[in-house]
Formats: sequence, structure tokens, C-alpha cells
Amino acid sequence: MSETNDHPEHATGGTYSVKGKAFTRDTRYITTRITADGRDGFPVQPGRYRLVAARACPWANRSIIVRRLLGLEDAISLGLPGPTHDARSWTFDLDPGGRDPVLGIERLQEAYFKRDPEYPRGITVPAVVDTTTGAVVTNDFAQITLDLSTEWREFHREGAPDLLPEDRRDEIDEVNQRVFTEVNNGVYRCGFAGSQEAYDEAYDRLWTALDWLEERLAGQRYLVGDTITEADVRLFTTLVRFDPVYHGHFKCNRNKLAEMPNLWGYARDLFQTPGFGDTVDFEQIKQHYYVVHKDINPSGIVPKGPDLSGWTTPHGREALGGRPFGDGTPPGPVRDGERVPTGLTTATPS
Amino acid sequence: MSETNDHPEHATGGTYSVKGKAFTRDTRYITTRITADGRDGFPVQPGRYRLVAARACPWANRSIIVRRLLGLEDAISLGLPGPTHDARSWTFDLDPGGRDPVLGIERLQEAYFKRDPEYPRGITVPAVVDTTTGAVVTNDFAQITLDLSTEWREFHREGAPDLLPEDRRDEIDEVNQRVFTEVNNGVYRCGFAGSQEAYDEAYDRLWTALDWLEERLAGQRYLVGDTITEADVRLFTTLVRFDPVYHGHFKCNRNKLAEMPNLWGYARDLFQTPGFGDTVDFEQIKQHYYVVHKDINPSGIVPKGPDLSGWTTPHGREALGGRPFGDGTPPGPVRDGERVPTGLTTATPS
Repeated sequence: MSETNDHPEHATGGTYSVKGKAFTRDTRYITTRITADGRDGFPVQPGRYRLVAARACPWANRSIIVRRLLGLEDAISLGLPGPTHDARSWTFDLDPGGRDPVLGIERLQEAYFKRDPEYPRGITVPAVVDTTTGAVVTNDFAQITLDLSTEWREFHREGAPDLLPEDRRDEIDEVNQRVFTEVNNGVYRCGFAGSQEAYDEAYDRLWTALDWLEERLAGQRYLVGDTITEADVRLFTTLVRFDPVYHGHFKCNRNKLAEMPNLWGYARDLFQTPGFGDTVDFEQIKQHYYVVHKDINPSGIVPKGPDLSGWTTPHGREALGGRPFGDGTPPGPVRDGERVPTGLTTATPS
Repeated sequence: MSETNDHPEHATGGTYSVKGKAFTRDTRYITTRITADGRDGFPVQPGRYRLVAARACPWANRSIIVRRLLGLEDAISLGLPGPTHDARSWTFDLDPGGRDPVLGIERLQEAYFKRDPEYPRGITVPAVVDTTTGAVVTNDFAQITLDLSTEWREFHREGAPDLLPEDRRDEIDEVNQRVFTEVNNGVYRCGFAGSQEAYDEAYDRLWTALDWLEERLAGQRYLVGDTITEADVRLFTTLVRFDPVYHGHFKCNRNKLAEMPNLWGYARDLFQTPGFGDTVDFEQIKQHYYVVHKDINPSGIVPKGPDLSGWTTPHGREALGGRPFGDGTPPGPVRDGERVPTGLTTATPS
């Protein structure tokens, strides 16, 4: 597996599938952690770190959602690269002057090189950058959101939900594992398959998992327990991209999400919950996939569809009970400067 | 507009869109007609002509449907090229030995060259070949089906429907014109657009027309009058390809056909009517588009979806009244040797 094919959310010059090969994700990340006890040299400290997270990217979208659900906006600032990137790096092309206003850099790559001048792997989002040095601390997307929940607890807003309830932790890990391999990564395995056989197998695996989720969500409002957890965040960021991107661009087309009644109700329920839909920029999502993956969409033409109006329609999931924020409360309005300009929803509490 | 881009159903070596350009269809065909009076030198004569019509191609599918509705199977034989073709021609790769059993040729191109050794345009289906010479008589797809209805009347089966009722002829022509430019060809204009601007405009035109059809079909079972006409045949062959191909491959993705209640009911009604669904080979349709259009699907991978089970579900359109075959009757079972092996339906009368 060549280096250029390892991480679909990084810059590769437009080549993502390798002829004759199944897609394999590089799961080697910078695993330094920011912790309450600072054991890796990076203690939790409000105002010190900047989360760099493109709205387009599902792995980064997770961290934007969790930061907002937990009310960490004042503790950790947010840098937002644009939806497309070139062969070298995600870039801050949407910021004035094309530079991140806090880090002062044009390309996220610069922060990676500050960490390691010979950084050999993909320039990925999300990345957490130490603003005192300008260097990336971690890009380990799976650990980042867990640490926001556990290590940053002191700085959570009042009423922040517990996204990792201790008594459900094993079940969350188990669901997360299956959702990661079969769904979050499963859609990429379909889209970047290098042969018909690899694609056919990926498609069957994906739909087996989606059928399992469809059934699981028939009788319960959320994936684990009766409150929103990390497991919901992780599934949501794939579901929200399903009809706009994965269905057509990645050929995950047995059904639209909108044709899976429970998953569609579940996805809309979350979308309409403050902290979820208000982080989603459908335009950036479509731009990212259709422009960046030149090998599967050489024209770079971005579809105008799908019709997104269904996302704000009633979902009826309240009938299943559930307490979205447990003993907590929904987050308040989105901060100025962090609103999605083309957002579908102002996310009134459901 | 280069010659290689003119006709999307012919062999071009995989290049269909031209960067920066809107798609323009070459509408120059061999316009010789087979008529009852033989004025072009080709009189109607049972057993003399062979219709060469790939199941994959929507323009050819029309002629297969009309031949069957009118019961012309004994009068005009049917040659079936496979779904994919190379840079030169549609080929008879599905026939024993890779040769059409009647014409004895491997490539349809040979019949075109018998007509004109320097034939300069695309090798298209449908084509009607004179079996006495092996030369193409006509490939003028729009005229072919009209002539089957009017010039071959003497050889129609008993109970054949009138697909071109004289008192509705103006309305049929009018509907056909709009359906051709905006829908039949409109989907290609989306898929082969050479720029974002050309695509955006094509998408808007297509959906304006589909919204018009959705409304028109709310209160009437068929497009014109209360019986099946040529207008229904022409719309059907595009609708049946919509979710399997045009929605994803051509980015016609505002909605699936299955999300347009009247169009979806209408399409299923026709699909379940003998003569329509029993001519449709979804596998060949998908193979054709996804394999042949290398420029928009370089991997050649063919999606496994969509789920097609909906096509045989109840459509409820009988409630709108209508007399599908007017004073006539449905055609009988499909002939041996002409059955679609992977067909969804045996087309029991609706």
C-alpha cells in the first residue's frame, strides 16, 4: 500500500484508489495526549490549544460536535481549513489572507513540520496544535474526542452531557469498533476499492452493518442507553454524509439513508439536536469529496443534489423516549464566527 | 464538438464529456425509411429486416418495447449486442461464437460499413439491417418506432394497441419533444457536462421537466389520453434507468425516482405491464454505463445497488382509471430466446 493512498482525508494529489487493491486505512497517528495530569508534556490548559478541524471531514466533524456539546469553545479555539486541499496539505483558504488567524499559517502542513520536520505521513484533520509553539500535539482523531470528554472535564460547561457514561463504556467501545470498521471506514472501502471484487465485498459488509443498525435503532432512540453518547457522534458524521456523498460518489447505493426509516429518523433527530446539525456544512462536504478525489471524479463537477429539505422534517423519535442530554442540558446558540453560513438549521432543541 | 463526443450510446474509446463544454448530441442519422409503399427502396416485408438493439441502451430499448407491444416478433427479428462496447463498435459478444446468428457479424460496425464503407459517425443502436444485403437501412431511432406503428400495421398482432392515436398525435408530438430535449437527453447533458456551469444548468432544466411530469401524472395514468402511447414508451426507458444509473453516474441526484411519488407509481405501472418491464435488463444497463464511460468512471467498477425490489410492488395507479391497451389486449408471453435472464418480472398483466 503506497503512502499516497493511506488516509482519504489527507492531501495525496488526487489518487485514492489503487487498481486491483482493497482500500486500507493507515491508522498510525501522532498519539501524544493532552491530559489533566500532563504526563505526555501537554497538560490541559484553557486557551493554549487550537483544534484544527475541517467541516468537510467526518473524522474532524466528530471533534467539532463534541467540543460544542461539552461547551469547550472558550477552552479550545477552533481553526477551520477550507473543504478542498492540494497535494500537500489542507489549507486555510477561507480565512482572511489565506492564513489561520491564530496560528498564522497558510497550510496545516506547517504545524506538522514544526512537530517533525520530516513528518512522513498524511496531513490530516482533526489536529490539535499547541499555540505556544505552533506544533501539532496530536492528530489521533479517535483519542481526541475521548480526551475532550474525560481529560477536559474541569472546563466543561454547566449541564454538559456525559458522552462516555462509565457504566456503558464497554458497550460504547464495542459499538464504536463495529461502526468504525464497517461503516465509518466501510464507505471508504466501497469508494476506494481498486477492483470489482474488493468493491462487492465492501458493499456487502457495509450493508450488513447498516441493516444491523437499522434494526438496533427500531426500538431505542440512541445507539447505547437512552442518552446521546460518543457512539452517536461517531455514527452521525457518516450518516449525514451518506446521501450527499457516499451514496453516489462511493457507490454505497443499495438505498439512500432516506430509505432506511429508523436510521433516517435517528439521523434527523440528531441533526435537529443542538451541537449536531449546526456543525454540518453540506456545501463544504460535497466540495471536499467531489473535488479532491480526482481519480474517481475526474471532472471535479459537484452534484447539486440531493434535496436536503428532509433533514429538518419531524422525525417522531421522541416516541421512543430517551433523555438526549441525560441530566444535562443542550448547548446554547452557536458562537459568532463559528456558524455554518449555509446551514439548514438553527438547531432549536428537539 | 469533436466527433468522438457526439453520441453517448456509440463507441468512442471512453471519452464522452469535453472539458469546458456542454454536451451536444449529434442528431444526424441515416434517415432511409422502411415503408409500406417502399418509396425509399425498402418496403415493409416480413422476415427481411433485423432490428439490432442493445438492451442496455434507452434509445434501443424503445424499439424493443414497441416491437413487442405491436407483436412484430415474427415480422422483424431481433439482434442483441452485449452491454459494453469497445472504441469501434457495439459487438455481438453474448452470441455463440461472438457473432450475430443471422447477420454472421461480430461487430455492428460491419453492417454500417456495408451501407457506407466510409461511414463517418458513431455506430449506434438501434439499427435496422436488411438481411438480404447485411447493410444498415436506418439508425434513426425516433423514426424507427413511429414506422413500426404506422408502416407495419398490416403485420401487427391481433389486439395490438394504437400507440399513435390520430386524434392525439399533436399532443404526443408535443410531449415527446419536451421529454426528448429535457429528460431523455437531459440526463446525458448532466452526466457529460464539461464544466460546473454546464452541469448546473443541465440539472435545473432536467428537474424543471421532471417536476412538470410529476404534476402532469398526478391526475392521469398515462402521459397522453387514457391509454399507453409512444410518449409513455419514450419516457419509460429513461425512468427505468434513473435510479440505477442517472441518479449517481450522471449526478441527476436531486431525488431518486423512488422519491417522486407520481413518476415512481407511473414507472412501476408501466414496468409491470407486459411489453415494458420484461424487456429491461438492469444488469446490462448498469454494465453499459459504468464500464463504457471511462472518463466519468475510470475504475469501471459497477455499483451493486440500487435495491430493485420496489419495481414489482403495487403502484395503485389503477385508481386513476385508464385503459392500458385501449380496445386492444396485452401482448402474450415473451418469446423463447428473448427473455431477460436476470429479469425482475414475468410481467403479469396489471
